[in-house]
Amino acid sequence: MNQQTAPLFEALAGRRAKGETSFHVPGHKFGAQLEPEELASYGPVMGIDYTEIEGLDDLHHPEGVILEAERLAAECFGAERSYFLVGGSTAGNLALITAVCGRGERILVQRNAHKSVIHGLMLAGAEAVFLQPELDPDTGLAAGVSLHTVKRALEAYPDAKALFLTNPNYYGMGVDLRPYADAAHQAGMPLLVDEAHGAHFGFHPAVPASALSCGADGVVQSTHKMLTAMTMGAMLHLQGDRLDRRRVEQRLAMLQSSSPSYPLMASLDLARRLAATQGRNLLELRIGWLAGLLKDLDRLRFIRPVRRIPGTSPYETLDPFKITLYDSSSSLTGFQLQERLGQSGIITEMADDRHVLLACSLATGKEELDRLFQVLQLLERDLAGNRDMGGEAAIPVVPSVQELLQQKDSAASDIGDPVPMTMEIRSTGVTAVPLEEAIGRPSAETVIPYPPGIPLLFAGEVIRPAAAQRIRQLARAGARFQGGLQDPSGCSILILSENGE
Amino acid sequence: MNQQTAPLFEALAGRRAKGETSFHVPGHKFGAQLEPEELASYGPVMGIDYTEIEGLDDLHHPEGVILEAERLAAECFGAERSYFLVGGSTAGNLALITAVCGRGERILVQRNAHKSVIHGLMLAGAEAVFLQPELDPDTGLAAGVSLHTVKRALEAYPDAKALFLTNPNYYGMGVDLRPYADAAHQAGMPLLVDEAHGAHFGFHPAVPASALSCGADGVVQSTHKMLTAMTMGAMLHLQGDRLDRRRVEQRLAMLQSSSPSYPLMASLDLARRLAATQGRNLLELRIGWLAGLLKDLDRLRFIRPVRRIPGTSPYETLDPFKITLYDSSSSLTGFQLQERLGQSGIITEMADDRHVLLACSLATGKEELDRLFQVLQLLERDLAGNRDMGGEAAIPVVPSVQELLQQKDSAASDIGDPVPMTMEIRSTGVTAVPLEEAIGRPSAETVIPYPPGIPLLFAGEVIRPAAAQRIRQLARAGARFQGGLQDPSGCSILILSENGE
Repeated sequence: MNQQTAPLFEALAGRRAKGETSFHVPGHKFGAQLEPEELASYGPVMGIDYTEIEGLDDLHHPEGVILEAERLAAECFGAERSYFLVGGSTAGNLALITAVCGRGERILVQRNAHKSVIHGLMLAGAEAVFLQPELDPDTGLAAGVSLHTVKRALEAYPDAKALFLTNPNYYGMGVDLRPYADAAHQAGMPLLVDEAHGAHFGFHPAVPASALSCGADGVVQSTHKMLTAMTMGAMLHLQGDRLDRRRVEQRLAMLQSSSPSYPLMASLDLARRLAATQGRNLLELRIGWLAGLLKDLDRLRFIRPVRRIPGTSPYETLDPFKITLYDSSSSLTGFQLQERLGQSGIITEMADDRHVLLACSLATGKEELDRLFQVLQLLERDLAGNRDMGGEAAIPVVPSVQELLQQKDSAASDIGDPVPMTMEIRSTGVTAVPLEEAIGRPSAETVIPYPPGIPLLFAGEVIRPAAAQRIRQLARAGARFQGGLQDPSGCSILILSENGE
Repeated sequence: MNQQTAPLFEALAGRRAKGETSFHVPGHKFGAQLEPEELASYGPVMGIDYTEIEGLDDLHHPEGVILEAERLAAECFGAERSYFLVGGSTAGNLALITAVCGRGERILVQRNAHKSVIHGLMLAGAEAVFLQPELDPDTGLAAGVSLHTVKRALEAYPDAKALFLTNPNYYGMGVDLRPYADAAHQAGMPLLVDEAHGAHFGFHPAVPASALSCGADGVVQSTHKMLTAMTMGAMLHLQGDRLDRRRVEQRLAMLQSSSPSYPLMASLDLARRLAATQGRNLLELRIGWLAGLLKDLDRLRFIRPVRRIPGTSPYETLDPFKITLYDSSSSLTGFQLQERLGQSGIITEMADDRHVLLACSLATGKEELDRLFQVLQLLERDLAGNRDMGGEAAIPVVPSVQELLQQKDSAASDIGDPVPMTMEIRSTGVTAVPLEEAIGRPSAETVIPYPPGIPLLFAGEVIRPAAAQRIRQLARAGARFQGGLQDPSGCSILILSENGE
């Protein structure tokens, strides 16, 4: 196929050039009422903000330019069938899970999955068997699930409908998915992968292999995250015959807008064209720049990047396009580091207690990396000055939290035992009760200590003694929780009340 | 509140002006890799395609500029709380239904609802009681549900969780919702309204009153359809305390992208600003132009607009911004009329067998209406010529279809009897069987004769003898079906097979 073309984008641009009169939606009529200041941002894009008129195909029953664009994407990403998503990877995860898993059916799912995966399980009414991921001792972050854990689960739950993994994680840490795909297939299950952060995988030898190339059956990618689509543009890729395509298509039609955005869809077409025709070269150039940056960072004493430690790191690959920095002098927390960078105009992706995460892509420029390093050098000077002045470490070093989280043998392994849990949309009321009384009852809160970002409890999950104990310990030790705890002291917790509202 | 401001749009534009360096998603880095031809459409909008960085708030937990923009929207549209939707009215309908209705709970729903409503019922696992709408004898189209039908259903199903109506329909036909809201409230139920086609309602005395002003508790509007947001931009409005807001918010967070598009959200902010500050004037001007067009159309003999016939039309209001045209000489079907207009550069919204629907908005220009009339005059001349030449009516006039569809007393009323139906996501297999054998078994096809567009059978609905008979009659008479029938002859039908796959 000719990857130089962008059939959907070209159809929109061509259509606009015809100057037809719109008696169809959208109501903005190509931006006719935009004020000058609005035109500067929206004018051009409103000109291609079309709807399903003759010649512009239909996302939910593609036969023309959308199907052509999706076929080019399938070829480019190595799928048999690719679907454009206008609802982000969220839509893809919801559709995949509801397509493979009916009410009460089992599915094996990595516990530190994106919330859209959890929501998919709830919509499906699945019996989820959550698999505990490995902890990276160096950073305290959660990596992927070990092959050992997966194999054990495949043996214990041979009736599960699928194995659902997230790879890589937000920080770019990943595993080689080939043996996982093989193990799932031997057990007669499809491997589904949330590869939201890996749309660029496989386009250069220096980035990890893509999930599709490793044999995954269904893969969701955020084309907007590491490639160049508009935000919310994503793709769902399928291969093989382990998934029922018609069912996946039905779920997508059910969960996505019946008025999908054409600019968004066409930006997927353009992102695919760029990746297919220039991806390798653009990545190569940046891989060189990023290697140079890492070398430069070696000259810094305090600000350090996370690097994979062979033999120790529980992950096998680290995406070179994700840079995770931390202050090894413990003067700045990750949040403070993020704030300091922001004050210098370096806007980062995310921070946790210790780290700040920077996301590069094939559109990152050399001058931006240079600017980053200049700012880091200035920061380093400040940190050194602070150190020389006898400044104290400002970081809330809570070794007990770290230790608690890394105690794999006691409570954590109990908590992590894969026990099927019924997921559903709940409409019952909630009540706060003392933690001791909550044992044996379903939590109304999702409790995620961060890092490592592994849910200790999902909403709806029955609170086991070990989990209650761990929550109390962590809260007392001053751990942070994603989204917070209703009671930060950890003395009480919200549970689902039995009588509804 | 100051409706002249657009806090979300201003925050994006202001942020872009700062020229910060992006080490966050999206990967396009403000469009750094766009080719010149792409820049012409996407350049400016990529500059405001931000993500949830500091200062730009979070759609799913709004506290800053998004909340401010939503509050302005609530004031403007007359709600207590408005939510920006990036997944279209689809997301709003799915969220409303899953918020009010749990598994196995009843809900009263207009039978000719948008497919997203049906999908919401399936996701919720609701027991739907479908209410038969009225047929417009003049056009053969389905209008709204009569107050009588609603009251009967409210009495028969006092345990239902909500009454869900669609108002206006696609053609702009609507009812005064006040007595419906009163009846629902007296029965202790919230009134939910899919007002996708009525975002402009209430902004001028010559357009119908808005659902919110009539007392509806939850209202979904496609801000992109009749107002000026980008396609897929919509709003969900709530008022009163009959709906649990926290639950609605949870459903929205579950069903919508965790990476919502900022340009889309900010276009909602701008559409609200335009409607609030200039809506009335812009509508007034166009209402005058549209009245002029209707007057001009009076000079045409063949091409006629649908007009409400007091005493006959089962609808009470007709949106002046929707123009439904047909060829009264029956030379052209609606599809042919649409094609002829398209050949002259007039792109219409939709066609059915008889009609073509044109959607205007507050951004429609006078010159566009003039152009439309010129084209219609030329067409009229052709039609007159054809008539004078003794040309035959090309329209597939199928009076038997019309008659069949309007037989309210026999099969139709049986079919339309509100019997609760369990809706769910189905993953069973399908089998084609002769129609006679399908009686008593669940259909795998949704059968919608069009017009009037009222589903005769939903997928999953048990096929009753009357429905089977009606399908056979309609198929033999040559009726059209939305999406077609698997077997156009109507001899067989797909049913859900019992053993699943």
